[in-house]
Amino acid sequence: MEMRGLQAFFEAESIAVIGASKKQGKAGNIILRNLLNGGYGGRIYPVNPSLDEVFDLKAYPSVKDIPEGVDLAVVAVPNRVVVDVVEDCAEKGVKAVLIISGGFSETGEDGENLQERVSIIAREKGIRILGPNTSGIISTPKNIVATFIPFQGILRGGVSYVAQTGNFATHTLKWILSAEHYGVCRIVGLGNKCDLDEADALEYLADDPETKVITLYLEDIRRGRSFLHALKGASKRKPVIILKSGRTQAGLKAAQTHTAAISTQDEIVDAAIKQAGAIRAQEYMELIDYSKAFALQPLPRGDRVGIITISGALGVLASDACERLGLRIAKLRDETLARVKPLYPPWMKISNPLDLWPAAEMSGMTETYRMGMDALLEDDNVDALIVYLMVLREYPVNLDFVPTLCKRHPEKPVLFSCSGEKELCDEFKERLGRMGYPVYLPVEPPCRVLATMYRYKRMRES
Amino acid sequence: MEMRGLQAFFEAESIAVIGASKKQGKAGNIILRNLLNGGYGGRIYPVNPSLDEVFDLKAYPSVKDIPEGVDLAVVAVPNRVVVDVVEDCAEKGVKAVLIISGGFSETGEDGENLQERVSIIAREKGIRILGPNTSGIISTPKNIVATFIPFQGILRGGVSYVAQTGNFATHTLKWILSAEHYGVCRIVGLGNKCDLDEADALEYLADDPETKVITLYLEDIRRGRSFLHALKGASKRKPVIILKSGRTQAGLKAAQTHTAAISTQDEIVDAAIKQAGAIRAQEYMELIDYSKAFALQPLPRGDRVGIITISGALGVLASDACERLGLRIAKLRDETLARVKPLYPPWMKISNPLDLWPAAEMSGMTETYRMGMDALLEDDNVDALIVYLMVLREYPVNLDFVPTLCKRHPEKPVLFSCSGEKELCDEFKERLGRMGYPVYLPVEPPCRVLATMYRYKRMRES
Repeated sequence: MEMRGLQAFFEAESIAVIGASKKQGKAGNIILRNLLNGGYGGRIYPVNPSLDEVFDLKAYPSVKDIPEGVDLAVVAVPNRVVVDVVEDCAEKGVKAVLIISGGFSETGEDGENLQERVSIIAREKGIRILGPNTSGIISTPKNIVATFIPFQGILRGGVSYVAQTGNFATHTLKWILSAEHYGVCRIVGLGNKCDLDEADALEYLADDPETKVITLYLEDIRRGRSFLHALKGASKRKPVIILKSGRTQAGLKAAQTHTAAISTQDEIVDAAIKQAGAIRAQEYMELIDYSKAFALQPLPRGDRVGIITISGALGVLASDACERLGLRIAKLRDETLARVKPLYPPWMKISNPLDLWPAAEMSGMTETYRMGMDALLEDDNVDALIVYLMVLREYPVNLDFVPTLCKRHPEKPVLFSCSGEKELCDEFKERLGRMGYPVYLPVEPPCRVLATMYRYKRMRES
Repeated sequence: MEMRGLQAFFEAESIAVIGASKKQGKAGNIILRNLLNGGYGGRIYPVNPSLDEVFDLKAYPSVKDIPEGVDLAVVAVPNRVVVDVVEDCAEKGVKAVLIISGGFSETGEDGENLQERVSIIAREKGIRILGPNTSGIISTPKNIVATFIPFQGILRGGVSYVAQTGNFATHTLKWILSAEHYGVCRIVGLGNKCDLDEADALEYLADDPETKVITLYLEDIRRGRSFLHALKGASKRKPVIILKSGRTQAGLKAAQTHTAAISTQDEIVDAAIKQAGAIRAQEYMELIDYSKAFALQPLPRGDRVGIITISGALGVLASDACERLGLRIAKLRDETLARVKPLYPPWMKISNPLDLWPAAEMSGMTETYRMGMDALLEDDNVDALIVYLMVLREYPVNLDFVPTLCKRHPEKPVLFSCSGEKELCDEFKERLGRMGYPVYLPVEPPCRVLATMYRYKRMRES
C-alpha cells in the first residue's frame, strides 16, 4: 500500500518499537504495553540488541533484521543513537518514523546539529518523520497507542488533535477520557517538527473519513502558505478549531523557550483563520468544549434557541449570554405554550426560557423535563436547545428518555448544563456524554458553544 | 438586644418555625431538620395548631403562645394564611420574619395584593421581612440553616451571598460544598423583596466581622441611591463581587418574567459598580472563582506573577493570559535561577514560567514542585504564584508541604490549577481547598482571578 504523509503513522499495519524494554516506566516498555493493551491488530516488532523477547514478542537486534516490511518505527532510544537508527530505518524501507526521544533542538546547539542530521536522512531517503521530542501518536480506528504515558480503553470517536505540545497525548487526554466522556480519533504531538508539521497533519485529517472535528494547538506556524492552503481545504470539509498561543510579548517569550517558536503577528494569524473559515478558540478548555459539541451534535439550522431551566436566574443569564453572543431567544408558538400549560399552576406566565421549577413541584422532575424538552423540540421556531439541569438527591431525575426524544429531531442540537451535587453532576455528565450529549458548567459555556456552532454554520454557507 | 436590619435574621437567638410539619419533604419539616442538623444553639419553637410536638420539640398552636421572646419567625404556610401569621408575629413582638412561602407578586395581581398587605403590616408594626418567595437564609457562625432544601455539615467560612435567586441556598450551594471546598458565612435569597433588599443586606454584611467577601447576584436594583451608598461603604471594607443580569433585551425580558425586575440601563449599573470600587463578574461561575480566592488568599502586592508548570504549553498560554489581563510575568532574580539550576539537565534554559517537566524527570515530582515553589516564593520579584499541576497515577505528587512553605510568605497569594485524571484532580482540589488554596481548571481561570485581585488592590489604594 502506498502511504502519504501521516497515513503510515495513523494506519500502520506493522510497527517496530526501537528501544523496546522490559523495564517498567521506560518509554520503550510503556509504548509496547500501550500497543498491546490497546488491541493493536497489526504486527509488532520489538527492537533491542540485548533482548530476545519482551511481552512474549520476539525481539530483533536491529530494524534491519525484521523479516517482513515495517510501516512505522517508533523510536525511543538515547538521542546520540537516533541518527544510526533512522539510517537503519531508511535501509529497511520503513515508511514512517516517530521519534519520541528528546535531546534535540530543544536543548541547544548540539541537539540542533543532531536534529539537522536526522532531517537530512529523511529528505534524502524519502522517510517521513514525526518529532523528535514528541509524546507520540494515537489512532483509535487502528488501535494504535504509541505514547510514553500508559493508556487503556481510549474511547473511539470523531475528534482529532494536532498539538505543538504533548498534552493531548498525556494529561489533557486523561482529563478528556475521565471527565469529558467523548471519543477521540487521531492525536499527534508535533514535537520539534523536523519534518512533518501542522500543514501535513491538516491535509491528512481533512481527507480522513474517521475525523469529524479537527482541533489544533499551535505555538507557531512554520510554512505559512502551505498551512493556510491546508486550513482552507480542511475547513471546507469539517470544523477546524485552533488555539494559537504566543499572542502577547510574554506569551511569545515563553513559546520561544518552550518550542523555539517563530514570531507571527497575531493579527495575521487571526485574519488567516477567518479567511480559511476555521474557528479560533480563545482559551484552553474551549478545545474541549467546542470539539465535543461539534463531534456529538448537529449544527443548528438557525439562531433561535430554546432554553429549559429549573432556576429563573439561570434562564436570565442564559438569555443575556445568547443575545450577547449573536443568538436569539426563540419565540415559542402558541401551540407549544398550550401544550406545556397543564404542567403549570394557573398563575404561571409561560415563555422561553421555560422555567420548569413551578411545573416540577406539581408534576415531578422527570416528567416535567420530558414534557418541556418535547414541547420545545417540536416547536418549529426552535433551532437548538440548551437544558439546565439541577441535580439534587431530593429531586431525582431520570433522563433515559433523552435519546429517543431527541432522535425525532436529528437536525436540532441539544446541549446540557448541570448544577447541584458534584457527584450527581459527574454521573449525569458521564451518562449524557455517552449518549452523545455534551454537558457544561452553568451558565454561559453552552451558550458560547452553541453560538460558535451557529457562526461556523453561517460561515460555511457564505 | 437591639437588632437592626438583617441582624435579627443572621444572629437570631430564638427561631419559630411557623408551618412546622412532621411530613418529610414539606418545607416546614426540612427547615426544622436543617436547624437541628446544623447544630443551632438557640431555642427552636415549632408552630402548628395541629401538632403537639415534632422532632421532640414542643409545638405551639400560634406564635403568640410561645412563652419566651422570638427573634426570628420562619414562615412556611400557604400564601393565604401569611397575612394572619405576620399579624400574629407583630403582636408577639417578633423582630424578623422570613417568608419562605410563594404565591405573591410572582403570580400576578392577587398575589401582589397579598404581598402589599404583608408589606403594610411590616411597615406599620416595625417588623423586618425577608421574602416572600425566598429559598431562605443561612448563617454558619450561628449554625442557622433555614432553607427548604436539606443541608448538612455546611462548611463555615468567609464568603457571604446575597442573591435575587434561590440558587445560593439550593443547588449552587450544594455545588460549592461538594465541588469547591470553601466555607460560607451568611447567605440570603432576597425573594420578592417586599421589605429588605440588597442595600440592607450590604449594610449588614459590611459591618459583619465574619464576612470577608460579599457576593451579589441581582436582576434589578430597587433603591438605586441607597444601594450605591451601601455598595461604596461595603467596598471600602471588603471585596464586593456583583453579577448583574438582565443586561440585554433578551435578559431583561427573562428577568421581568422571573422576578418582575425593573429595567436599569446597564451602563449605569457598570458606572455605579466602578464608582463604588466593587468588582463586576461577567459570568456565573466567576461568583465562585473570585469569591474563593478573595476569601482564602491575600491580595497581591504587585502585578509580577511567578508561574510553575509541568507543560510548556500551559506556561505559554498562562503568559498570554496574564499579559492580556494586566499582569506581568516576573523576571526571576539570578539567585533564584541559580537555586533551581541543579534540578535541571544542563541544557535547560530556565526562566519564568518555570517548566518543571525536565526537572521532574530527573529529581522526582514532589521534590521538584517543592523546590520550584520555594524558589519562586523566596524571590522578591515575585508577587504572586500560579501553580499548574499535572496529576497522573504514574507520577504521584504529595503536596503536604504546601501550607508550611507558603506560610513563610503570607503576603503572596498562591493559586493552583489541575489537569490529568479527573478522580485525582478532584482529590487535589478538595485537599488543597481545605488547606486554603483555591484550585481552578487550566489555563486562563487562575490568571483571570489573580488579575481581578490585583485590580481590586489597585482600586482600593487609589
